[in-house]
Amino acid sequence: MEAIEKVLTFIVEIEKLKDVQRNTKPVGLERYENSAEHSWHVCLSALMLHSFSNEAVNIDRVIKMLLIHDLGEIDAGDTIVYASETAAVKKEEIAGIQRILSLLPDDMGNDFFTLWHEFESGDTADARFAKAIDRVPPLLHNIHGDGHSWKKHGISKEQVFSVNQRIGQGSEVLWSVMRGKLEEAVDQGILE
Amino acid sequence: MEAIEKVLTFIVEIEKLKDVQRNTKPVGLERYENSAEHSWHVCLSALMLHSFSNEAVNIDRVIKMLLIHDLGEIDAGDTIVYASETAAVKKEEIAGIQRILSLLPDDMGNDFFTLWHEFESGDTADARFAKAIDRVPPLLHNIHGDGHSWKKHGISKEQVFSVNQRIGQGSEVLWSVMRGKLEEAVDQGILE
Repeated sequence: MEAIEKVLTFIVEIEKLKDVQRNTKPVGLERYENSAEHSWHVCLSALMLHSFSNEAVNIDRVIKMLLIHDLGEIDAGDTIVYASETAAVKKEEIAGIQRILSLLPDDMGNDFFTLWHEFESGDTADARFAKAIDRVPPLLHNIHGDGHSWKKHGISKEQVFSVNQRIGQGSEVLWSVMRGKLEEAVDQGILE
Repeated sequence: MEAIEKVLTFIVEIEKLKDVQRNTKPVGLERYENSAEHSWHVCLSALMLHSFSNEAVNIDRVIKMLLIHDLGEIDAGDTIVYASETAAVKKEEIAGIQRILSLLPDDMGNDFFTLWHEFESGDTADARFAKAIDRVPPLLHNIHGDGHSWKKHGISKEQVFSVNQRIGQGSEVLWSVMRGKLEEAVDQGILE
């Protein structure tokens, strides 16, 4: 009973991720995306794309990583991928994920903190693929949304190609397709 | 390449679930929840609660079920659980999920349609648990949100107890805890 109460407290606490605003707008919507719906979107994207990973991945682990990957933002907020990640923000995210996971009963949170850390480090096949997938929807948002976030934040095509080529570390073929779409965006003048 | 393009079309199409409005507001927020962020929330809820299932479940299958369970709403919209489900709405949801999954390459969509149908039927341990979890956050939204959705739709305590006792089919102990919370809500006058 007490364990269930703790999980229910966690379930209510993570509602706050629905109020963390990201830097792109979902295709067709005028509002910005939040980190909770983004988390769902990348889980389903990973599920449908995992056969294109460079290395064999355990999709069930990848999905769990992606379900929790942004929980630290409840305390730290979302940072645009093109901003250099400061040590202060990283520290705040680590403290945030630890606080959230500590709401769980017993040692349940420990395993998820290890998984979160694996994602952040990006040193395993599962983490490389998860991180690659995490980059795809924001590109699609910009490509289908007149480059709204690139323009707003003054992001150059050089930055976009340089930062997102990391997708290739998870899936070369996916990066090849996405690179083609980015080149089209340059041709159309929505990425400069 | 062509297969990846198809998956990317699917990934863009399912963005629309972020625009499907549900009938409750997340705890602490003034706006209604959408079905995409709800899907994330129930996946993580299931992950943290699966040890309390009546029967052994495959949590990886449960999570996949919950990732896709609302995709039919992109065409059909969300229906409040207290409304009788009409054959017309059900037909629209089936057509909706089939349309969405048919965007995927090869026969990928078939397995997910089978999984969606298993969830809807609720006849397996995995589906019973998934359906139980799907009912929990809307109750928490009302309990922590002055019964806003119950009041708006004129839902009585008899309806709330009767409809949600189905949680017990997935987890008796979870239903026992939730029933206690609902009884408190009655004592506090937010559920009548």
